[in-house]
Amino acid sequence: MAYYKYHVFFCTNRREGGQPCCARLGGQEMRDYAKQRCKALGLTGPGGVRINSAGCLDRCGEGPVLVVYPEGVWYSYVDQEDIDEIIDSHLRGGTPVTRLVI
Amino acid sequence: MAYYKYHVFFCTNRREGGQPCCARLGGQEMRDYAKQRCKALGLTGPGGVRINSAGCLDRCGEGPVLVVYPEGVWYSYVDQEDIDEIIDSHLRGGTPVTRLVI
Repeated sequence: MAYYKYHVFFCTNRREGGQPCCARLGGQEMRDYAKQRCKALGLTGPGGVRINSAGCLDRCGEGPVLVVYPEGVWYSYVDQEDIDEIIDSHLRGGTPVTRLVI
Repeated sequence: MAYYKYHVFFCTNRREGGQPCCARLGGQEMRDYAKQRCKALGLTGPGGVRINSAGCLDRCGEGPVLVVYPEGVWYSYVDQEDIDEIIDSHLRGGTPVTRLVI
């Protein structure tokens, strides 16, 4: 059995020189939001959900991105509403949010 | 098909106050080493291996730790020789290193 049912990694990498990067598009703030939201919903911990920040996931042009393991479902999101939908549908309900999958 | 065949996350988190943490046990250096080693071996890129740093994976007492997704195999390692064995056996050969699995 997986140590975490859903292990979520948000790219929070910052690239210099004006290149597109997840940090500049809210990656860190959305990771912080998802972490507190999952905690408030009682989803976190072993056997449940873990929300992590990560270095560059190397899909910068599609960012901001996150990936849900062990399923390996990748998302590109825009705002907090997208994150809420991923949490509600995927992490609580088990149904990936198709419109945001990359 | 998975975007990365092996997506490896090293905990590189630093905790203050003298608590055990992966950063103090070489997590960042071992991640940097693994990254350059996998690159030198030509293992990296989509369809191959991606080596990432990550925030606290919350297995501090077993650290330093890394996890290989999508398989969800967790390792505790000590030194560069352990990392070499994980790269050679698991990431190149497809066989997890049982003695290091947690």
